[in-house]
Amino acid sequence: MADALILHEYSDSGNCFKIRLTAALLGVALERREYDIQKGETRTEHFLTTVNANGRIPVLQIGGRFLPESNAACCWLAHGSALIPTDRFDHADMLRWMFFEQYNHEPNIATLRFWRRMVGEDRLDSVQRAAIPAKEGAGHAALAVMERQLETRDWLAGDAASLADICLFAYSHVAHQGGFDLDAYPAIQAWVGRVTALPGFVPIDHR
Amino acid sequence: MADALILHEYSDSGNCFKIRLTAALLGVALERREYDIQKGETRTEHFLTTVNANGRIPVLQIGGRFLPESNAACCWLAHGSALIPTDRFDHADMLRWMFFEQYNHEPNIATLRFWRRMVGEDRLDSVQRAAIPAKEGAGHAALAVMERQLETRDWLAGDAASLADICLFAYSHVAHQGGFDLDAYPAIQAWVGRVTALPGFVPIDHR
Repeated sequence: MADALILHEYSDSGNCFKIRLTAALLGVALERREYDIQKGETRTEHFLTTVNANGRIPVLQIGGRFLPESNAACCWLAHGSALIPTDRFDHADMLRWMFFEQYNHEPNIATLRFWRRMVGEDRLDSVQRAAIPAKEGAGHAALAVMERQLETRDWLAGDAASLADICLFAYSHVAHQGGFDLDAYPAIQAWVGRVTALPGFVPIDHR
Repeated sequence: MADALILHEYSDSGNCFKIRLTAALLGVALERREYDIQKGETRTEHFLTTVNANGRIPVLQIGGRFLPESNAACCWLAHGSALIPTDRFDHADMLRWMFFEQYNHEPNIATLRFWRRMVGEDRLDSVQRAAIPAKEGAGHAALAVMERQLETRDWLAGDAASLADICLFAYSHVAHQGGFDLDAYPAIQAWVGRVTALPGFVPIDHR
C-alpha cells in the first residue's frame, strides 16, 4: 500500500498550489491540512519539531516522513513521470528554471503579492516599504527573462510541459495581485493559456 | 568525444565554487572564463544574448549550450554519480536542501559576504544598509536549521555526501566573511571538516 500523502499548507500560497497542481496533473490524491501563517501556526513548537524546523509551509508528508520546499515536493510527486524530462540537459534545464523561480521570481513577485494582498501595504514596516521598488524592478526583470525564453518556445525546458512550467506558473498567473501587469508580456500570457489547458489542470482556489 | 565544459564565473563567488568542487570530486575537467561582476561584465549585450539573459554567473557551457543556476549545473555534472541519491525520497530531500540554500541561505549569508567583502559597507546604499539586520537574522535562522539537521546525521540528505552538502558548504564555510560566527554551530563545523576531507576536495581559492 502506498504511503498516505498529506500536504501541510496555506491554500492561498502559490508555493502550496504548485504541489496541488502537480498532483492533479498526475492524478494523485492529497490530503490537505491548513495552517494560518499570519497567526504563526507554522511557528509552534509542535510544527517546528515535527513538520519543518524551518517553520514554513508547504511540507509534503509522505507516510511518516516530511519533505519541505515546494519545488522538492513537486519533484518527489513527479518522479518517473512525463513532467520530468529524461534527457540529461533538459532535466538540468528544468531544475535551472526551478532554482531561478526560488531566487529571482518568488522573493519579488510572491512577496509583493503577499504584502499587498494578505498583509496590506499600511501594515508593512519601514524596511519592507523601502524594499518595494527593488522588488518591483527585480520581479519585472524575472518576467522579462521568462518572456524572452517563451518568445521562441512553448515550454520553459525541453519539448513539453515540465515542473519548470508548473512551478513558474504558480505565481506568474497571479502576478497582477502583486502589482505586476502582464500586458507587457504577451509570450507569458500565451504560455499561461497553455498551462491552463493541460489535462487535469486545477485553479489555485480549487478545493 | 564529450562536449567541452566551460565555466563562466567570478572566482570568489561561492555559487561558482560549488560547480568547481563538484567537478573536482568527480574528476571532471572544466575550462574557466572569468568575469568581473563589479565592472558589469555579465551585463554586456553579448553576455545577455549568448550566455545568460539573466545577466548572472555562474553559467556552465556544455558544448554550444548554456546552463545557468549553480545548483542546476551541479546536477548536470553529477548526473548518474554517487553525489545524487537514487532513492526517491533521498533524491527529493537533496533537492529540498538545495532549494533551501537558494532561498534561505544564499540571499542572506552570501549577500552579506558580498556586501562586506567585495563592495564594502561604506559603499552600500540606504536600502541595502537597512536590510542588514533582517539578513543577519535570516542567515542565523538558516544556519540553525542546518545545525539541527547535522546534530544527528553526518550528511544533510541520505546516507552519504551529496550535492546538498556541496551546495550548502560553499557559503557556510566562508560565512565568517559575511559576519556569521560559526562558533555557535558545532555540528556545522564538524560537517565542514567532513566535506573538506572528501577525496578530490579543492578549496575555494584553488586555481
